[in-house]
Amino acid sequence: MPIYNAPTKDIQFVLHDLLKVSEQDIPGFEDLDRDFTSAVVEEAGKVASEVLHPLNVVGDTEGCVLENGVVRTPTGFKEAFQQMKDGGWTAMDCDPEYGGQGLPYVMHTAAQEPFVSANMAFNMYQGLTHGAYSAIYAHGSDAQKQTYLPKLTTCEWTGTMNLTEPHCGTDLGLMRTKAVPNDDGSYKISGQKIFISAGEHDMAENIIHLVLAKIQGGPEGIKGVSLFIVPKFMVNEDGSLGARNGVSVGKIEEKMGIHGNSTCVMNYDEATGFLVGEEHKGMRAMFTMMNEARLGVGLQGYAQAESAYQNAVAYANDRLQGRDVTGAKNPDGPADPLIVHPDIRRNLMDQKSFVEGARAFTYWGAYLIDRAHKNQDADADGLISLMTPVIKGFLTDKGFEYATAAQQVYGGHGYIEEWGMSQYARDARIAMIYEGANGVQALDLVGRKLALDGGKHVMAFFEMIKTFIKENEGNEALNKDFLTPLKAASKDLQAAGMYFMQNATKPNNALSGSYDFMHMMGHVCLGLMWARMAKAAMEALESGASDTEFYETKIATGRYYMARQLPATAMHLARINTGGDTIMALEAANF
Amino acid sequence: MPIYNAPTKDIQFVLHDLLKVSEQDIPGFEDLDRDFTSAVVEEAGKVASEVLHPLNVVGDTEGCVLENGVVRTPTGFKEAFQQMKDGGWTAMDCDPEYGGQGLPYVMHTAAQEPFVSANMAFNMYQGLTHGAYSAIYAHGSDAQKQTYLPKLTTCEWTGTMNLTEPHCGTDLGLMRTKAVPNDDGSYKISGQKIFISAGEHDMAENIIHLVLAKIQGGPEGIKGVSLFIVPKFMVNEDGSLGARNGVSVGKIEEKMGIHGNSTCVMNYDEATGFLVGEEHKGMRAMFTMMNEARLGVGLQGYAQAESAYQNAVAYANDRLQGRDVTGAKNPDGPADPLIVHPDIRRNLMDQKSFVEGARAFTYWGAYLIDRAHKNQDADADGLISLMTPVIKGFLTDKGFEYATAAQQVYGGHGYIEEWGMSQYARDARIAMIYEGANGVQALDLVGRKLALDGGKHVMAFFEMIKTFIKENEGNEALNKDFLTPLKAASKDLQAAGMYFMQNATKPNNALSGSYDFMHMMGHVCLGLMWARMAKAAMEALESGASDTEFYETKIATGRYYMARQLPATAMHLARINTGGDTIMALEAANF
Repeated sequence: MPIYNAPTKDIQFVLHDLLKVSEQDIPGFEDLDRDFTSAVVEEAGKVASEVLHPLNVVGDTEGCVLENGVVRTPTGFKEAFQQMKDGGWTAMDCDPEYGGQGLPYVMHTAAQEPFVSANMAFNMYQGLTHGAYSAIYAHGSDAQKQTYLPKLTTCEWTGTMNLTEPHCGTDLGLMRTKAVPNDDGSYKISGQKIFISAGEHDMAENIIHLVLAKIQGGPEGIKGVSLFIVPKFMVNEDGSLGARNGVSVGKIEEKMGIHGNSTCVMNYDEATGFLVGEEHKGMRAMFTMMNEARLGVGLQGYAQAESAYQNAVAYANDRLQGRDVTGAKNPDGPADPLIVHPDIRRNLMDQKSFVEGARAFTYWGAYLIDRAHKNQDADADGLISLMTPVIKGFLTDKGFEYATAAQQVYGGHGYIEEWGMSQYARDARIAMIYEGANGVQALDLVGRKLALDGGKHVMAFFEMIKTFIKENEGNEALNKDFLTPLKAASKDLQAAGMYFMQNATKPNNALSGSYDFMHMMGHVCLGLMWARMAKAAMEALESGASDTEFYETKIATGRYYMARQLPATAMHLARINTGGDTIMALEAANF
Repeated sequence: MPIYNAPTKDIQFVLHDLLKVSEQDIPGFEDLDRDFTSAVVEEAGKVASEVLHPLNVVGDTEGCVLENGVVRTPTGFKEAFQQMKDGGWTAMDCDPEYGGQGLPYVMHTAAQEPFVSANMAFNMYQGLTHGAYSAIYAHGSDAQKQTYLPKLTTCEWTGTMNLTEPHCGTDLGLMRTKAVPNDDGSYKISGQKIFISAGEHDMAENIIHLVLAKIQGGPEGIKGVSLFIVPKFMVNEDGSLGARNGVSVGKIEEKMGIHGNSTCVMNYDEATGFLVGEEHKGMRAMFTMMNEARLGVGLQGYAQAESAYQNAVAYANDRLQGRDVTGAKNPDGPADPLIVHPDIRRNLMDQKSFVEGARAFTYWGAYLIDRAHKNQDADADGLISLMTPVIKGFLTDKGFEYATAAQQVYGGHGYIEEWGMSQYARDARIAMIYEGANGVQALDLVGRKLALDGGKHVMAFFEMIKTFIKENEGNEALNKDFLTPLKAASKDLQAAGMYFMQNATKPNNALSGSYDFMHMMGHVCLGLMWARMAKAAMEALESGASDTEFYETKIATGRYYMARQLPATAMHLARINTGGDTIMALEAANF
């Protein structure tokens, strides 16, 4: 049986030593003192370990079952979902006007991490609901907000996002789902949507589907897409539930992982839908939630790696196999634990240094979202827009890579489902695909975000690194192991950006390097996070913090990342510098 | 439904243009002319596509079922296995004295590839049998050979290899399975073995288990391990089957993939076993088969990537999504096919250039095995010993990586089991683990093989590269795109070897870099293969070969590998040069 313990100390370190949340001039942050965040995170961790994690394997094994149009979730899910509702965990950052706690997004993120690590498939039910909440909150009418938000806040009703159709995913302009106006201002929605997470289940009274569709007679392509609310059960004026709407589940998809989540084909057959926001502005409504949604998926990537890592460490300490070449570490036993072997440590250090860097990067992103929203800070908004594809693409690619690496520590047992390591890899795999496949993230980064506002935000990012280095180069320990490699990696990244600019006449040159650029930027971001964390840890040690081992471990882990992971930027630059010619050389028929 | 078509042209290219098999002075190679190998490979491809591939999804979906001690293989497996036997595909390279066709190992390898690509789990039944054949052929008594080999050659009986126990995998010295001598020279074998592929099934009359066990009173640890034949049914003197032996299946493991293969827990309860070779020399018997077995697993790695690649290409040509930024390629359609997008091409070129390089590397390894065995060539034997961990470790790591990359081309559909892409990734995953986990391959390479015979073989490998570069640097096209990057990569590899030597006082320095070294060497080997293939393709074009498109595609694919993959060596060198300090920095308790 796999284990999971919320890394509350590491979470607190990021919130307070790194981000110093309670010192920030952002409304609501003043309440985020160490005691408060500790209480929240500890409690979230407890729920994660005790309630959600035991159901992770159950969800994977049982999956969701469709019978007579009704979806049965795995044993225990319903009760656990009720506990989440009762505990008020479903919408910490929602508006108090609609029953939320109004906490900063960074706090929501820190509390979500343990839930996602413990049971990703389960947590998606509330994750999708949060997405639906955000869409209606940002773009719905007052009446829509009054009708739906209080129920979505509590997860009495859950939500879904309906974008994909069988023939169109990324290219939503090809969409065929139609909306025909009714006389009363509502619409008849008809069409088929696929890959609808939490599309149908037995854990809520009602399900609020947010559906993209084309209003008949509207503009062609992506400019004719509108967003609709399509409730499973119609809602009466008094808030009670009325007739069943014309939406039904066609089937549940058999997937590689996240079996605990019901991924549905949804059929809309003249279902009644209510326009959210303006006609034909559906994509804009979607985009406003995108930074948060994608940050949430990036979190899934590293959170699965975190769980897998914890188990790999336990196994490496437990499993006796071979001897330390420098002398037996367990001389009275038949063999030494796996963890004495350098290659096992290389693997574990790769995982550890990634996960901790990724956590810092993600929480920093959440902090930027708070600053953008609560302080109307356009620079923060631009910066998080730039970072979003990197958080999503890099952290999910690496999250899967390291979940797989953790599985490898188990040898043959890693391949046996009973040991649970396969599930982490299989579950993590989806995060690279949904909410925009990672190739699309790379395209968004290089094709759109780099040039956003005249390249202002990427310049600001480089400036931020430069300033940090300049301000701290007097610190010898930091300079040697952290600032020097950060400077080199940042130089590589700038050189890649320069290459794109100088070779812009052939757009394929930049697009061919987009994936490498995304990874490169991910490394630089984690390098910056590690340099900052190392500085924070050094300061804590200097100021006489009692837990010296914790801070020293933090610095040693960062040193590993800077020495052994960051040099990947040079490889990515070398690839980018070869341009698009070798990539585009073949005729399609010659593949 | 996934597709598979054997890449017969590419296979022929490696056999004839690259390896020039029929011109080699190796007994039996004179018969390997183009017509003969073409006939074999075409026919193997046909069996693979028509018989084995349709059962790949069936095997994954149904799996193997244990009922009352009997294992039922998936629907159609039995009939297909019979077709393999009838077609004489089960032991092409076996000794004609025992019913084999006596063909070179390289021919066996070329015929196996389509089988493995089409249905890896199915093909393991004969793969394990081939392993058992080889062990008895190399170490069995004449009587044992007469009794078992003819039946193993035809797969009327199948074989298994029993090494792992619940508490010991890599460290076989910890083994507990016991052998107690009987008066008649046989032994009573008792113990439990796990992860036994093809351990029990319904496709053969008898199963010949090769079991490692410790003879009571023998030396401690690995030096006390002996190898035994334990037949499922005892074999009478006249060759007929007698009583059931004391071996039974405990359970079938639920695995991440290769569901079509029955991976069993095997219980030995005073089963009658017959010593193979000498007492306490069981590991030596195992080691003699290891090069072939590990090469076979390396083949599994790239063969799964090949299948996945073929499907990714088909999907990328078929799926319409978005527009080519340089102008619509399918202006009359609603969108362009995926393959117009640079990042999709990057992904496909990564896969293609890896798979074709891996095929060349593997066949070259098979050719070295032939040369070592048939010409008693000690240099070839040393070289393949050096290459074996690289073929196994690098090709399975990358094979999984690219099977996953192919899955990514499908977007959301890649995650849905119905489309078949998940299976390639899940099946390929095991190859990184069994037959020695890849970390153990890296240890074998750096800890043992580099220093083998005073470092003679690695020096010979470097010399081979140097000579090839020197002989061809007058060829301008080859020099610029192939020899120059090969030289740089080879220099990186030598620098890493130098680092290990100069820092040998702390063994953890070399061991910490072992995994990077294995990957680095894999890249250099594929770089060498591509330089040679490019040369061969250029020569074919110069000599007026009619299929210019094929050869030009080959060169362009190689150019991609050299430009975009080979630069990874610099990153691996950078990692290696940081030594073991950052890896070994933490106390075990601080992970």
